[in-house]
Amino acid sequence: MAYYGFLNGQICPVEQLAIGATDLGLLRGYGLFDYFRTYNGRPFQWDWYWQRFMNSAAMLHMTVPIQKDEAYRTVMTLIEKSGGGDVGVRFVLTGGYSPDSISVLQPNLMMMAEELPPAAHSQHENGIKVILDEYVREMAEVKTTDYKRVIMLATAIQAAKAQDVLYHKNGEISELSRSNVFLLNGNRLITPNRHILHGITRKTVLQLAKADFVIEERPVLLSELYDADEVFTTSSTKQVLPITQIGDLTIADGRPGERTKYLHERFEELVSNW
Amino acid sequence: MAYYGFLNGQICPVEQLAIGATDLGLLRGYGLFDYFRTYNGRPFQWDWYWQRFMNSAAMLHMTVPIQKDEAYRTVMTLIEKSGGGDVGVRFVLTGGYSPDSISVLQPNLMMMAEELPPAAHSQHENGIKVILDEYVREMAEVKTTDYKRVIMLATAIQAAKAQDVLYHKNGEISELSRSNVFLLNGNRLITPNRHILHGITRKTVLQLAKADFVIEERPVLLSELYDADEVFTTSSTKQVLPITQIGDLTIADGRPGERTKYLHERFEELVSNW
Repeated sequence: MAYYGFLNGQICPVEQLAIGATDLGLLRGYGLFDYFRTYNGRPFQWDWYWQRFMNSAAMLHMTVPIQKDEAYRTVMTLIEKSGGGDVGVRFVLTGGYSPDSISVLQPNLMMMAEELPPAAHSQHENGIKVILDEYVREMAEVKTTDYKRVIMLATAIQAAKAQDVLYHKNGEISELSRSNVFLLNGNRLITPNRHILHGITRKTVLQLAKADFVIEERPVLLSELYDADEVFTTSSTKQVLPITQIGDLTIADGRPGERTKYLHERFEELVSNW
Repeated sequence: MAYYGFLNGQICPVEQLAIGATDLGLLRGYGLFDYFRTYNGRPFQWDWYWQRFMNSAAMLHMTVPIQKDEAYRTVMTLIEKSGGGDVGVRFVLTGGYSPDSISVLQPNLMMMAEELPPAAHSQHENGIKVILDEYVREMAEVKTTDYKRVIMLATAIQAAKAQDVLYHKNGEISELSRSNVFLLNGNRLITPNRHILHGITRKTVLQLAKADFVIEERPVLLSELYDADEVFTTSSTKQVLPITQIGDLTIADGRPGERTKYLHERFEELVSNW
């Protein structure tokens, strides 16, 4: 099955999608993206993802060269041409082709349907391990394409038999490389509110949790991990995924906690009816 | 006149050079580059530029998929096909095509001949103005493709009728957006030695200046700008370019200084015989 993509009006299989060498996303890292997935063939939380994409573009002083309705229709076309099953969808907006390798003229917009990563049942059952890294993303609130750091850490993550990295700086934790982090301490659900990309799954989980937990969105200290009963991470593809080991620290008894499972079940209910 | 480029073995006009949409340079900002120019048809300081490119690649855990000799021959071919006159040459190495948008398999290497920017005689005669920005490049020592910051500052630079930006952080100056900075104070030639990209023109100027100046490569305070007799910037295309205004601060009498001119003349002598 070929997955289909869109670039400036043209639709073709993703492997045929190519961008010119003078694109500022390529030459200058001047680009942003967003990524969402479908459930039952429908884009999950489309309105929120679209708004975040628009916000990222505004922060990078770029205009998105397509209207929301047309973008939605294009996404539905890409899904259909890609076989009609559930997919991931990636939007990429770059500074476009530049005559002098620095000036922005007209952004380039790509949209691509992608195969979803395989379901990680054993990770949900056993929890994952993450390593710690002292780092904070530049412009963390904007979904820029800058993910050099985690690619450079790939070997260290593998060597530690870990699955990801948790960033911290000045004694505060922020986020994993591509997902948000939550702590549970008794009835309190705690998550950092700064130096993070404001995840749509994070926002969804906060809504789902409102009825059962006291929610604290605030700066979170690295040292609070020692007191946490449960830790989990959220993202479009990870949903609600337990973290049971952070560097040398085992969270509680090293098994996924009941409240994390409860929240994941609430999330699965929501998406099964999407 | 078409300028020619190279991508993974293929040579064609740069405007036909295209890279697939799943390239990690595009999707994840995982890329580095280098840029040099020719004088009299010969790459300037080729050995140094090649070494820096190799060093950048090593820092990003990537292997350059071409040997030095073959790279040199390819550069000469690009120059010849582009008309044989002096050109700029850009090397770009990215993380390559990724099956899952994050794993590195095989880097992509592009090399492109580019038109040189027009000679900036009036800037050399009058000096340039720069604005100040509190910032330090992430991994400044590595020539990554991350230049979002200066692109985002383009409007502020224009509004200030300035030509570039000087970065400073924690009271220390580092570099301009794409060039190094030097101060002259009496007979002392002072330039930052950290949080910078180690410019080849910077290195060349330090060699040229050795006989006539006391050289200080060290951390340089923002406050030292107030005492500077002369300030200039160096890069492959700017050579030795006077800075006469930094934010609200006029350097000395606001005219390019004699020692900056002297160093620029030494530089022009060197390249005229290259």
